[in-house]
Amino acid sequence: MEIKANNPNLKSWVEVSAQSDFSIQNIPFGIYTDKEATHHACTAIGEYILDLHEAHQLGYFKDLNLPNAIFSQKHLNDFIALGKETTRRVRNRISDLLNLENNELQHAAHKNKILKKQSEVRMLIPVHIGDYTDFYSSIDHATNVGKMFRDPENALLPNWKHLPVGYHGRASSIRVSGHSFHRPKGQSKPNPNEPPVFGPCKLLDFELETAFIIGKNTEMGHSISTEKADDSIFGMVLFNDWSARDIQTWEYVPLGPFLAKNFASTISPWIVTLDALEPFRTKGYEQEPKVLPYLQYTGNKNIDINLEVLIQPENTDATVVSESNYKYMYWTMEQQLAHHTVNGCNVQVGDMMASGTISGTEKHQFGSMLELTWRGANPIKMNDGSERKFINDNDTVIMKGWCQKEGVRVGFGECKAKVLPAL
Amino acid sequence: MEIKANNPNLKSWVEVSAQSDFSIQNIPFGIYTDKEATHHACTAIGEYILDLHEAHQLGYFKDLNLPNAIFSQKHLNDFIALGKETTRRVRNRISDLLNLENNELQHAAHKNKILKKQSEVRMLIPVHIGDYTDFYSSIDHATNVGKMFRDPENALLPNWKHLPVGYHGRASSIRVSGHSFHRPKGQSKPNPNEPPVFGPCKLLDFELETAFIIGKNTEMGHSISTEKADDSIFGMVLFNDWSARDIQTWEYVPLGPFLAKNFASTISPWIVTLDALEPFRTKGYEQEPKVLPYLQYTGNKNIDINLEVLIQPENTDATVVSESNYKYMYWTMEQQLAHHTVNGCNVQVGDMMASGTISGTEKHQFGSMLELTWRGANPIKMNDGSERKFINDNDTVIMKGWCQKEGVRVGFGECKAKVLPAL
Repeated sequence: MEIKANNPNLKSWVEVSAQSDFSIQNIPFGIYTDKEATHHACTAIGEYILDLHEAHQLGYFKDLNLPNAIFSQKHLNDFIALGKETTRRVRNRISDLLNLENNELQHAAHKNKILKKQSEVRMLIPVHIGDYTDFYSSIDHATNVGKMFRDPENALLPNWKHLPVGYHGRASSIRVSGHSFHRPKGQSKPNPNEPPVFGPCKLLDFELETAFIIGKNTEMGHSISTEKADDSIFGMVLFNDWSARDIQTWEYVPLGPFLAKNFASTISPWIVTLDALEPFRTKGYEQEPKVLPYLQYTGNKNIDINLEVLIQPENTDATVVSESNYKYMYWTMEQQLAHHTVNGCNVQVGDMMASGTISGTEKHQFGSMLELTWRGANPIKMNDGSERKFINDNDTVIMKGWCQKEGVRVGFGECKAKVLPAL
Repeated sequence: MEIKANNPNLKSWVEVSAQSDFSIQNIPFGIYTDKEATHHACTAIGEYILDLHEAHQLGYFKDLNLPNAIFSQKHLNDFIALGKETTRRVRNRISDLLNLENNELQHAAHKNKILKKQSEVRMLIPVHIGDYTDFYSSIDHATNVGKMFRDPENALLPNWKHLPVGYHGRASSIRVSGHSFHRPKGQSKPNPNEPPVFGPCKLLDFELETAFIIGKNTEMGHSISTEKADDSIFGMVLFNDWSARDIQTWEYVPLGPFLAKNFASTISPWIVTLDALEPFRTKGYEQEPKVLPYLQYTGNKNIDINLEVLIQPENTDATVVSESNYKYMYWTMEQQLAHHTVNGCNVQVGDMMASGTISGTEKHQFGSMLELTWRGANPIKMNDGSERKFINDNDTVIMKGWCQKEGVRVGFGECKAKVLPAL
């Protein structure tokens, strides 16, 4: 499949620095607001957003037969539900409009009405999330956790290499980058010989993840094969699966994490399309033992996405605490989706499925404080001289993600949130 | 709080048999469709439904200041979101309209336009379910499962009596009574010394549960106390948490049930309000050890709801296989909701929170085939001479629930679904 908008030779008439996540090869989708727009769909280019609703009203998509209000919905769900053929045509058309060689918009008087500085608008949550699932698909993360909490000699549980372990999470508390939330309170049992206690979480952690967004509804009883999975995945975002480790340790047997996770999750505002990520596909893990036929796949299905986590204490510089990569995933998105639906579970446009913490093999590549500090045994030194075992009140955690290859950069922008003291 | 519509002396001009779940003291809420109504809100009385939208258009609620289209929405969420003061007034007003001593509707020529036989309409799912949570709050069920799968001497895990264990489930595959679904397929590991296998679930089970429906939004960071919890609970339904035991056993460590549950769940169509259930409140379990302050409560917070499960093989009579009661719950709904929100997790109108399997102490009171047949060791004899260890293809599972006291019966109707062979 050739995707026109991915052509590495394209240049935009909008200035795009070499470090920008939003090259003309990206064309992600989001929803923004400002004093003129309650909620308009938009794309990002360099330091700007392009208002797709205004562009549509001005006739720039007139050949695509789009519903008139498709870009003024509260969420992108209806747009995504138009199907990949249509959303692909829209992305190609946006690419044309931003192309240096195209004069339609570049010299139009109304250009400034639809091109706005990112710093002057506020991004909103891009989709209505019907159901949210979290996987556990990084082998280094699962191994680290298994070593710490179970058996160092048998860190992976017996099912781990046979199926992408996953569980359902809470959709209502997923927020878009830029929010803040209060440190959760809850039960924990710090002393094995004493009863549980109640209070603010003491071991608040981030989990560095990505999430993919479902682009097509299925009916109950229907399964999606690994081959067809990409047709059902619209795009990806960065995902911070905030975790309260002390609450989790006490509550999670036998039915999994609950209050340790559902107080807040954070996503980046831009959905980078799976199309835009295609050039950065890379080989997946050699899976041994061989997986069951419904989980087998061909081709390069991992993606080379650089990932970074920074902690920014109040009023000081941020410190990079983790440098990982999405390519370290053992299970691919295509396998996750095939597994999720193999029992007939129906999926819906806007459903979000997160990767699980993405850790690499090296210590600086671990995707959570739990692993980076090995349960607090090795605190991280911050640029301001302070130390962190876990996340402190008033810390802001920032995640970044980007692909880079042959001069083309396609990135996600930031996924950030600030922790306020417990109420 | 005196609730006018609960008066046990009320009689309706609509015939209501002594065995009917839908006495004038019930007045539940649902959504129905027929060839005239795409989706109208309604209540049930005897063998009839009363179309609330048509009644509203005819002016019967004119003093209540309701939005004109409030009863013609696809779901009851907007109605519920009006708040308990308003929905309570609506229930009282319906009670008046159906009262034998009230002449407004009983002799009106248009009476037949809004009163329809239940057998001639189809009930739809009553609410849009944003998030669905399943608890695990019956002590007999948790003990039975612990005995079978873990340690008979220490059947309950250490956290069980300190917090109502719960986990997130899949909202998209919850269907209203009357549907059918295909037996799920998936991975299991029947032989510990062999690799896992893939195929149709062999140990398909029901779980007898109820679920409550959230009636009020909260903001992230906000908690609901046990005292205030009833203000946030609109009502209850019966809930069948279909479970694939063989899939569950293999997949559920360490993050809980996933594909073993998310292929289908079934709810009864009528939301019985918490108000209507108030007269049937009864004393809760003595909780020992004493729970943390945020889980403590006063008053009678269990509810005496008779529960029954029947299995109906194709073309033959149904057999009652379980007779349980909601009053056997160890943790109350009020405690469940207080726990769910104590970390700041936000809840939304229409969210559904299920009880977990409700088992009593006696064998015939167990709420799943897993317990009733003790993992298949003691098959159940059916009326038609066949036996069941778990649920067979083409079996229909029917759940019923009702309160009865001093001549007043308030019930849920049926929660039923049929299992079709795997695709």
